[in-house]
Amino acid sequence: MPASPAPQSPGVADLGFARLDLDRAARTGDPEVVYGAGKTGDQIVTSVLALHQAHPDRAILATRLSENALLSCGARLPGAEIDPVGRLAVLGPAPPLRGLVAVVAAGTSDLPVVHECAATVRVFAAEPDVIVDVGVAGLHRLLGQAGRIAAADAVVAVAGMEAALPSVLGGLVGVPLIAVPTSVGYGWNLDGLSAWLACVNSCAPGVLTVNVDNGFGAGVAAARIARAAAGARPRPAAQANGEAR
Amino acid sequence: MPASPAPQSPGVADLGFARLDLDRAARTGDPEVVYGAGKTGDQIVTSVLALHQAHPDRAILATRLSENALLSCGARLPGAEIDPVGRLAVLGPAPPLRGLVAVVAAGTSDLPVVHECAATVRVFAAEPDVIVDVGVAGLHRLLGQAGRIAAADAVVAVAGMEAALPSVLGGLVGVPLIAVPTSVGYGWNLDGLSAWLACVNSCAPGVLTVNVDNGFGAGVAAARIARAAAGARPRPAAQANGEAR
Amino acid sequence: MPASPAPQSPGVADLGFARLDLDRAARTGDPEVVYGAGKTGDQIVTSVLALHQAHPDRAILATRLSENALLSCGARLPGAEIDPVGRLAVLGPAPPLRGLVAVVAAGTSDLPVVHECAATVRVFAAEPDVIVDVGVAGLHRLLGQAGRIAAADAVVAVAGMEAALPSVLGGLVGVPLIAVPTSVGYGWNLDGLSAWLACVNSCAPGVLTVNVDNGFGAGVAAARIARAAAGARPRPAAQANGEAR
Amino acid sequence: MPASPAPQSPGVADLGFARLDLDRAARTGDPEVVYGAGKTGDQIVTSVLALHQAHPDRAILATRLSENALLSCGARLPGAEIDPVGRLAVLGPAPPLRGLVAVVAAGTSDLPVVHECAATVRVFAAEPDVIVDVGVAGLHRLLGQAGRIAAADAVVAVAGMEAALPSVLGGLVGVPLIAVPTSVGYGWNLDGLSAWLACVNSCAPGVLTVNVDNGFGAGVAAARIARAAAGARPRPAAQANGEAR
Amino acid sequence: MPASPAPQSPGVADLGFARLDLDRAARTGDPEVVYGAGKTGDQIVTSVLALHQAHPDRAILATRLSENALLSCGARLPGAEIDPVGRLAVLGPAPPLRGLVAVVAAGTSDLPVVHECAATVRVFAAEPDVIVDVGVAGLHRLLGQAGRIAAADAVVAVAGMEAALPSVLGGLVGVPLIAVPTSVGYGWNLDGLSAWLACVNSCAPGVLTVNVDNGFGAGVAAARIARAAAGARPRPAAQANGEAR
Amino acid sequence: MPASPAPQSPGVADLGFARLDLDRAARTGDPEVVYGAGKTGDQIVTSVLALHQAHPDRAILATRLSENALLSCGARLPGAEIDPVGRLAVLGPAPPLRGLVAVVAAGTSDLPVVHECAATVRVFAAEPDVIVDVGVAGLHRLLGQAGRIAAADAVVAVAGMEAALPSVLGGLVGVPLIAVPTSVGYGWNLDGLSAWLACVNSCAPGVLTVNVDNGFGAGVAAARIARAAAGARPRPAAQANGEAR
Amino acid sequence: MPASPAPQSPGVADLGFARLDLDRAARTGDPEVVYGAGKTGDQIVTSVLALHQAHPDRAILATRLSENALLSCGARLPGAEIDPVGRLAVLGPAPPLRGLVAVVAAGTSDLPVVHECAATVRVFAAEPDVIVDVGVAGLHRLLGQAGRIAAADAVVAVAGMEAALPSVLGGLVGVPLIAVPTSVGYGWNLDGLSAWLACVNSCAPGVLTVNVDNGFGAGVAAARIARAAAGARPRPAAQANGEAR
Amino acid sequence: MPASPAPQSPGVADLGFARLDLDRAARTGDPEVVYGAGKTGDQIVTSVLALHQAHPDRAILATRLSENALLSCGARLPGAEIDPVGRLAVLGPAPPLRGLVAVVAAGTSDLPVVHECAATVRVFAAEPDVIVDVGVAGLHRLLGQAGRIAAADAVVAVAGMEAALPSVLGGLVGVPLIAVPTSVGYGWNLDGLSAWLACVNSCAPGVLTVNVDNGFGAGVAAARIARAAAGARPRPAAQANGEAR
Repeated sequence: MPASPAPQSPGVADLGFARLDLDRAARTGDPEVVYGAGKTGDQIVTSVLALHQAHPDRAILATRLSENALLSCGARLPGAEIDPVGRLAVLGPAPPLRGLVAVVAAGTSDLPVVHECAATVRVFAAEPDVIVDVGVAGLHRLLGQAGRIAAADAVVAVAGMEAALPSVLGGLVGVPLIAVPTSVGYGWNLDGLSAWLACVNSCAPGVLTVNVDNGFGAGVAAARIARAAAGARPRPAAQANGEAR
Repeated sequence: MPASPAPQSPGVADLGFARLDLDRAARTGDPEVVYGAGKTGDQIVTSVLALHQAHPDRAILATRLSENALLSCGARLPGAEIDPVGRLAVLGPAPPLRGLVAVVAAGTSDLPVVHECAATVRVFAAEPDVIVDVGVAGLHRLLGQAGRIAAADAVVAVAGMEAALPSVLGGLVGVPLIAVPTSVGYGWNLDGLSAWLACVNSCAPGVLTVNVDNGFGAGVAAARIARAAAGARPRPAAQANGEAR
Repeated sequence: MPASPAPQSPGVADLGFARLDLDRAARTGDPEVVYGAGKTGDQIVTSVLALHQAHPDRAILATRLSENALLSCGARLPGAEIDPVGRLAVLGPAPPLRGLVAVVAAGTSDLPVVHECAATVRVFAAEPDVIVDVGVAGLHRLLGQAGRIAAADAVVAVAGMEAALPSVLGGLVGVPLIAVPTSVGYGWNLDGLSAWLACVNSCAPGVLTVNVDNGFGAGVAAARIARAAAGARPRPAAQANGEAR
Repeated sequence: MPASPAPQSPGVADLGFARLDLDRAARTGDPEVVYGAGKTGDQIVTSVLALHQAHPDRAILATRLSENALLSCGARLPGAEIDPVGRLAVLGPAPPLRGLVAVVAAGTSDLPVVHECAATVRVFAAEPDVIVDVGVAGLHRLLGQAGRIAAADAVVAVAGMEAALPSVLGGLVGVPLIAVPTSVGYGWNLDGLSAWLACVNSCAPGVLTVNVDNGFGAGVAAARIARAAAGARPRPAAQANGEAR
Repeated sequence: MPASPAPQSPGVADLGFARLDLDRAARTGDPEVVYGAGKTGDQIVTSVLALHQAHPDRAILATRLSENALLSCGARLPGAEIDPVGRLAVLGPAPPLRGLVAVVAAGTSDLPVVHECAATVRVFAAEPDVIVDVGVAGLHRLLGQAGRIAAADAVVAVAGMEAALPSVLGGLVGVPLIAVPTSVGYGWNLDGLSAWLACVNSCAPGVLTVNVDNGFGAGVAAARIARAAAGARPRPAAQANGEAR
Repeated sequence: MPASPAPQSPGVADLGFARLDLDRAARTGDPEVVYGAGKTGDQIVTSVLALHQAHPDRAILATRLSENALLSCGARLPGAEIDPVGRLAVLGPAPPLRGLVAVVAAGTSDLPVVHECAATVRVFAAEPDVIVDVGVAGLHRLLGQAGRIAAADAVVAVAGMEAALPSVLGGLVGVPLIAVPTSVGYGWNLDGLSAWLACVNSCAPGVLTVNVDNGFGAGVAAARIARAAAGARPRPAAQANGEAR
Repeated sequence: MPASPAPQSPGVADLGFARLDLDRAARTGDPEVVYGAGKTGDQIVTSVLALHQAHPDRAILATRLSENALLSCGARLPGAEIDPVGRLAVLGPAPPLRGLVAVVAAGTSDLPVVHECAATVRVFAAEPDVIVDVGVAGLHRLLGQAGRIAAADAVVAVAGMEAALPSVLGGLVGVPLIAVPTSVGYGWNLDGLSAWLACVNSCAPGVLTVNVDNGFGAGVAAARIARAAAGARPRPAAQANGEAR
Repeated sequence: MPASPAPQSPGVADLGFARLDLDRAARTGDPEVVYGAGKTGDQIVTSVLALHQAHPDRAILATRLSENALLSCGARLPGAEIDPVGRLAVLGPAPPLRGLVAVVAAGTSDLPVVHECAATVRVFAAEPDVIVDVGVAGLHRLLGQAGRIAAADAVVAVAGMEAALPSVLGGLVGVPLIAVPTSVGYGWNLDGLSAWLACVNSCAPGVLTVNVDNGFGAGVAAARIARAAAGARPRPAAQANGEAR
């Protein structure tokens, strides 16, 4: 290749196929994440190990893993948590969790986004509370969970198709609410445009959104919101150790 | 103009600016309607009078009237019902009503479409039942009207912005359900595309749609469905004379 | 996965990869359906059997099956009707049929949607009458079937490319009419947008639509309309037992 | 303005606001046309007079005139034909007409495009035969005119909304067929995209299209096709003097 | 109009043209807001007065006011704050402010959205800190304000055209960050689509968005986030009384 | 499948997977064509043979063949012309050719569309003259062929990317001109939308278009135009037997 | 307004409605420009005067002026050049010009963009050479100017509708070439999308583009390119004093 | 195939599947390039060898090579430079380089476009300086390279997702700047539309763009700009032999 070589950068691990930012946590308080789309299993394993070596005390997250990459991680990252539904892997101890994020979805089709969001919340040091059986076509179940949702410091509403869930939730609770439109649909939905437009046009004031299927982005933001709010309120014992969920 | 003259057509009233189909009711059972968009008040008044003269025994509907056209109709069509909210006029006696159509909307912004739909239902010989205070952001009111809605032979759900109402209604009742997406919105909604996509991607099975803001089309279809269904069921006295609503 | 377990829900069969609503028929009168897109043959067979066990007296429908899923259903669901054209399977006895739905299409390319619609109509307890040789490019055949179509309680017009069929039909009959735009085309048709726009812009008043290729949604709605209308009219003997078709 | 002056071009009338090509007819056989959109009445009158002075023996066409421009042309171009429906003006004697172009449309809403097309056909030296009462929602009238349409050398089908007319015509006649999609619609039609997509996705083979509302372009092409074909066939006397139409 | 009258709803002030929810603050803790788009000055003044009468102790906000409506509010709402740049009016005492929201924009074109957002933040009980001279084309000014922005509990980045500001900010601070794309542009920007796509595709993790130009929605969400976070941290005296800004 | 059987149609060969219209040539003068997209080699061979048996005296065209279908046709249709570039097959003797169609393209990328168009022209009984080395980036070659192109009765300009060729040709010749936009491109061209928009926005008056890549549709129309024009003009001997090209 | 006051910035003239960057020329070598869209005549005059006072020795450019703003500038900026076609004003002496920019367009419709570009080139210190009678529909004129265009240091090709001009020019000259797509069109061109897509899909390698109608942006870039190139080549005397153009 | 044979063209190598322009370098000064998309390895090798034989003294570039084509080139083009990241091959000696082009990108995802651009710059006779560790989310690194970037004769900014890099660069340097939007994204980015819109809506004046992922087009234009500028300035020795980079 004709490119000129870049000078060595301190705090960067140059793996050839990627340059990892080892000082990010020190600068921003949030860890570096391995985005796995389009990467081989070998590249992902190498990246995760390099970050783990630099920060053995905190969890390293790898997202959007292919089936092959999931197998590689399972085989070569002993001790890592492998989540084939969320297509992700986590290596290293979870940080202490502060603040509660309700991750809400209607059903099983949105589970990959739900898992990605919940794992991100945890790696970014807040506690996820996942509630997935509450679609608007069966309102009684959603209403039955309203109190549990209202108790969170932030709510992530994952919704595909016509994405009515964020609007209904926005009428039920006053907690900061992030809608994740998904590309799930049973027909012509323009790869999630229908859900996306619904989220930004919600009749409930104050609904925030991220990109289609971006459970990671929603998780990062929700964890930040929840962590900041958590210092303001005494947490019940059950939530602290996670037993009640 | 260089065009050659068309031969005289029987059953057609040629007004120069429009050709009215006088035999339509005989052929299809449904009356001719004056679509007023882009027409002057004078043209609309002339059209309504020509149809009224041919069919003095049934209501003539004119839709999508400009403010000037509404004033012209008010001044020159004595006895006509003028509805400035629905931007429409009706001249002549309503037909006998058979079957009940619930026309449901969240609030006041969608009222023009609601009025157009309800007036169409009536002119096409079914009885409208308008319910407008039931947005998804205040679920308790919508749930309080579920029984009333379920009693109809057809439901028209008028909804703008993210259009969550048809999905929520579709989970509550099993009646044939027509969604009318509207161009109402508080921001970037692509002139109703957001509502339209939401309607055709509803998670509730069997939701039908029409074009954006097309209260007329929904009214025609709903009246046909309700009229056909009405013969199958004894109607309570109150509905027959409309007192209860 | 870091998600907290959801509490047991009564009336729900939790299969791990899906949660089946066993009480839906009791609540809404309509059966639960297995949507097969993106599911393995094993998952579909397990879902159909679970629903069949809960409701041995009524037909269970599985739609959008892959070739592998069709083979699995054929091998492991003895007695099931397997339709490779409609990409669907039905297990269990058909319900008593009330009301007639004409399912109309121009030719062979739209057959998958036609089959999905007709099977749905039957499982949702109305009788389908399929007419597929009637494109607008050969008007004499369509005109020859006008009487048969007008005799139905609801009409479903399946149409791809420029989707002229619903408009022509809407000028011929006054029956409630549902247009299903399809993604069939011989060139640049934006995955069915051309047909979709044609359906919602039909010059015939009262045409209703569903999503592109959504034969299932049209079938659900048409069956509801036809069943309600059927009680109002004496049915000829031939139609009652289905012999004539 | 900082621009450098262009050298004088022979055969060009430089009016300051426009440069007219006086030699076009000699080069291509077709006359120069004044496109009036965005031009003042004064500019249009000046342009037409300049062309008329250069070519007193042939008709000069000005299209897309505003109301003010139409008034200016009426007042200052004595002898000109002014067509407010087609928003055009023609000054000078029509050329001898060869070949017949059927210009077909459903109703009155498309008349501006029909007039523009018919006047263009005539100025480009073919004979238009305008037929405007033949929408697909009333098939009997269209079928009644099939023979008249088939007798033309070229057919222009002007159609808005779902634009089903070209497809139906394409199944009835084998004459070269040009579809003009129009922006006419009763709702959300994307300024004619619905009609445009319908035209290029027609199920009838060989349908040609132009831009939305482009009656002028269709007229130019149709006249060329008809003129070329006309030499091959003896024309009946009635067509030669236009009496029969 | 043929609609049936709705029954009286407690806690609702029915003004004919609108139904005001008087109990909203009690239910959700947030006040009712008058959305002024498409409403007359008279309607807006009446709505604000009705809400003010019900809640004399808290500020009532009216947004998206036309020039006429601004004049009406100025003349008939003595004591109200009228903001012609933000096209809004506020009547009644501001609530006690908790938490700090940085509202950041590049320049003067985005000021209407900035004002709407800042006023909303205040009415929803948080303190806005507006910083508007920090576009990415002049990085030194933005970098000079990084410390001030990082001190907020939430950041709203208002950005039109290519909307690079949220990404640059997201790399500088770890505070929850809401991007408001605006329709401001110097050419073909699809009414804000360019800015919108930029916001949801930001390379900075955790950027949240609202609809184009929706300063109100961003303000509601930011105030909720800031209020919740404020309890967790001792506020300096200067911020409490607003002197330092 | 639950569909009812259609009655036998005379003049139709029902092959199960397709219904062939055997009388089309008698009705319209143009032959039936086998559109091969999505069909197996076996289906295509069977269709071509059935049409060939009904019409042994005229050429049968099959288009859009997959590689497998091309192999099947080569093996099982002895005597057929197989064109792998145009992805088509022709069986049976060509009809007598009347009229000349210039099929013009810039280079090799558009050859599949050029071949499809030229073969269609021939089967529809006109003579194609293919000219493919004339892109606008090398004007001298295009100008060198202007006389040859102007001698045709119709011109088909096949053009991808920015599709400048039809506009340049439209300034050079006055012959009826059909532009075929192609999906050929070196980057983001929206599957041919760039070429399509260029064709319908051509600055040359009278340019006609078909769908993207639709060489077949252009060929049908061009052959009709050329055949009609051919009777009007004595053809030179060389063109009649094709020697000169 | 609730916003906090920003601290005084040195080198900035705060006019209340705008903040002018007085040091820009010192930092980047290019002058500050007043973008007039959406500004009143008073605001524009005030801005131009403030910049002129700070930099009396160099030209100040104001673009996108409304008719009222043009009148204000004419009345209150004595000595300014007012260009109503280009909708711009220039106050102060032009800088010394280095390098030559050919600004090329087909005709009169694109003149506003041509003027804006040429004035920008001059204010940014290069010499424009405007050539506007060279559309692709009349190739001989364009070819006649090829030598003149090739002599420039940069070429700006302004083109609407199908925008074929940049591709044809790209085949004629090897000079850096910037295409400005314009929103000029005679029909459905999506506000310039057709021209824009044509420019970025040009078959000529190395064509650069800016936003639709952005003559200013093209002028800035072309002037930079031409100024840099000008030092490398001896300029003929005629060009130095501008006499030849 | 029915096409008529084209006459032999001098200066063209007709390979059957492609026609190579052997005289291009003589005419325009720039070499012919083999665009490899959709071509087999065999076709590409044959094309490169034919061009190399005609021009043994200058580098031949082949772009957009598939994996198979890369292998073929590696095996059958001894001495060629094979770049699997840039998916390209170069055969023959590089021309003397004049002028410096900075090719700037944020990270590793955009490397294929960066390599394609840098190789093109070199083959088109300018010197590339590649800088890839400078995303806007880590401003300090970008600021640290500002001097190096400002020293170039032209800058190419390669940017995906929200493409903020060109705007930030445009505020830092006054060098001609070409933005290449890329299709790189972590979610719904419409295949690069988000980056494309950002580039043409940049708030920095004078940013030029090419098509999405079109590193080749940007390289051609940048090399032309840099070569022209290079003559005007004495080059430091280090740059002449490339040692410093």
